[in-house]
Amino acid sequence: MKALEEKILKEGKVLPGNILKVGSFLNHRLDVEFIMEMGREIARLFEGAGVTKILTIEASGIAIAVGAGAAMHVPAVFAKKNKTGNVDGELYQTVVHSYTHGTDYNVVVSAEHLSADDTVLIVDDFLANGKALLGLIDIVEQSGASLAGAVSAIEKGFQKGGDELRARGVRVESLAIIDSMGDGNIKFRPQ
Amino acid sequence: MKALEEKILKEGKVLPGNILKVGSFLNHRLDVEFIMEMGREIARLFEGAGVTKILTIEASGIAIAVGAGAAMHVPAVFAKKNKTGNVDGELYQTVVHSYTHGTDYNVVVSAEHLSADDTVLIVDDFLANGKALLGLIDIVEQSGASLAGAVSAIEKGFQKGGDELRARGVRVESLAIIDSMGDGNIKFRPQ
Repeated sequence: MKALEEKILKEGKVLPGNILKVGSFLNHRLDVEFIMEMGREIARLFEGAGVTKILTIEASGIAIAVGAGAAMHVPAVFAKKNKTGNVDGELYQTVVHSYTHGTDYNVVVSAEHLSADDTVLIVDDFLANGKALLGLIDIVEQSGASLAGAVSAIEKGFQKGGDELRARGVRVESLAIIDSMGDGNIKFRPQ
Repeated sequence: MKALEEKILKEGKVLPGNILKVGSFLNHRLDVEFIMEMGREIARLFEGAGVTKILTIEASGIAIAVGAGAAMHVPAVFAKKNKTGNVDGELYQTVVHSYTHGTDYNVVVSAEHLSADDTVLIVDDFLANGKALLGLIDIVEQSGASLAGAVSAIEKGFQKGGDELRARGVRVESLAIIDSMGDGNIKFRPQ
């Protein structure tokens, strides 16, 4: 998505440790009109895939999941990190390892919101090592739902998560794929 | 908002301890089309107020903030709970007490995303004792921005947060106000 690549070049900040900050539009300040535009692009990519539900993970996946749900006219479910008092009853749950924080965390989805009748599109803001995505795929499998695929806004193509999932046969689309960002010089994979 | 009251009656579940579960459309599964409709109602309520930015708090405020931002054509900022590696530079921060979890937590907003030029509308899913809202108002005051008011989707009118803020002169609108919900029998305040 050319407009996203341009926005990353214009507003993104590369920090040491291969960290890309896009807090000006994607995961702190939300450029809502642009997020709705990304949602329409996701809808275009998965047109005809029979998606009945978007699945994402709190917190920074929620905005783009709403954008995708609005464009596809389907509800979204956000998986919760750690169990809270507001999620009860039967649960799907899995454990995700966070490289950023060096810890494992539980991810839960109430079983009433995902079923074998669903065709699920997983949406998230970033795709790097793919651990969060793997956790969400595990939850989709527990529910018996079909998996249409996964979309990230920004994929760090120099990490292995996206390509490993593609090699396993999962349809993974990213609106922008960064192949390198050494010395603050961001290079995108042609799509 | 009549449609929201009807949805609460139809899909909400009252649990012991005055807990209202609306996970089927507002804070776990997201009824995206309905959230966009709530956003349009928020835009209607604050038409002409000169709002330049929506402010909410992660995680469950994000969806309705996106709905409001889309309808009002303004960006949204979500405050983060506890400081993470992705928020750096100058910060506005405050401490919020959570009755649900019995703990205090830090709330931060990067100073680059809120300034004295902004007119801010605070948006959240629930308003009960008002502690989260007070924290967000504190952050707005630190930034020097003007406060247009605050909107919650669902206010627990039998707790004091909303009415205390109104008594202080803050414009507080709620799309539905529950005056009582004893024995699972939900009564709304006429608006």
